[in-house]
Amino acid sequence: MKLLSLKINSLTDVFVQELRDIYSAENQLVESLPKMVDAASAGELRMGFEQHLNQTKGHVSRLDRIFDGLGLDASGETCEAMEGLISEAKDYISAEGDPSARDAGLIAVAQKIEHYEISAYGTLRTLAKHLNNVSAQELLQQTLDEESEADKKLTAVAERQVNVGANIRPQ
Amino acid sequence: MKLLSLKINSLTDVFVQELRDIYSAENQLVESLPKMVDAASAGELRMGFEQHLNQTKGHVSRLDRIFDGLGLDASGETCEAMEGLISEAKDYISAEGDPSARDAGLIAVAQKIEHYEISAYGTLRTLAKHLNNVSAQELLQQTLDEESEADKKLTAVAERQVNVGANIRPQ
Repeated sequence: MKLLSLKINSLTDVFVQELRDIYSAENQLVESLPKMVDAASAGELRMGFEQHLNQTKGHVSRLDRIFDGLGLDASGETCEAMEGLISEAKDYISAEGDPSARDAGLIAVAQKIEHYEISAYGTLRTLAKHLNNVSAQELLQQTLDEESEADKKLTAVAERQVNVGANIRPQ
Repeated sequence: MKLLSLKINSLTDVFVQELRDIYSAENQLVESLPKMVDAASAGELRMGFEQHLNQTKGHVSRLDRIFDGLGLDASGETCEAMEGLISEAKDYISAEGDPSARDAGLIAVAQKIEHYEISAYGTLRTLAKHLNNVSAQELLQQTLDEESEADKKLTAVAERQVNVGANIRPQ
């Protein structure tokens, strides 16, 4: 939580606040996804995380373009929710035991991360529309579509790979 | 992040870990929703938060029943992601400025919270199914349905109330 109160005088202020929050979140994810790649056991999951790392770098670039268009600095926020999500991911990354079961845990956290981003980009896209910022709206919609697709892929990987390979009960 | 490594030997271990995480998250939310009620300006939003507080108490009760069925203690985890989400909510709760614009910020965070829960309960429901825990599966599905419904209501409130009332740009 901030030491000084936020000043929210308009929807533009909410838009900029939420943009800075997701900018921090995406950058944290760029740092953390390589560790999730290394920790994943199933090849399909490793590949999924690698693909999403590349996409995430693209999401940061789109946000840079939006900030450029607004003439504003992108930095200045730390997304505490993403810090918490990444902390959950680290618990599974460093977990001991059955690799396939650990993959199920990594997928659980990765889907929470996707849902955080889906919600954030959904709000941002709607705010951009209300603010008549058409170029931002289009860029945000592209990222939103990719995040939704990534979430669906994780569900499919979980069904195909992990739950088949993982022990149901301790051996 | 934990000081000691998690032991994940099976899907049951992931199930219990995720159950304890959402148990902590729901209990944090029971503490925080009354502050969101007080901070909301639009009557429909206040009422929505109040209704969700009652539902959230019901979600905690359902989790208690699942832990009873497993013969396990519900406590022992702190959901750091929810701590971060609630910190974001506090930033808007204490924000100065236009009340309707602040409502838009509160809705943005509330939808992130809903999406965290939708993802968590979706995973838990699927794990319960794989583990053939039918009673847990049913209870988790009921909560998942309520969380999805709450998210849709927030979108509707945002469209009807907040975005109509809030300033688009600083006055």
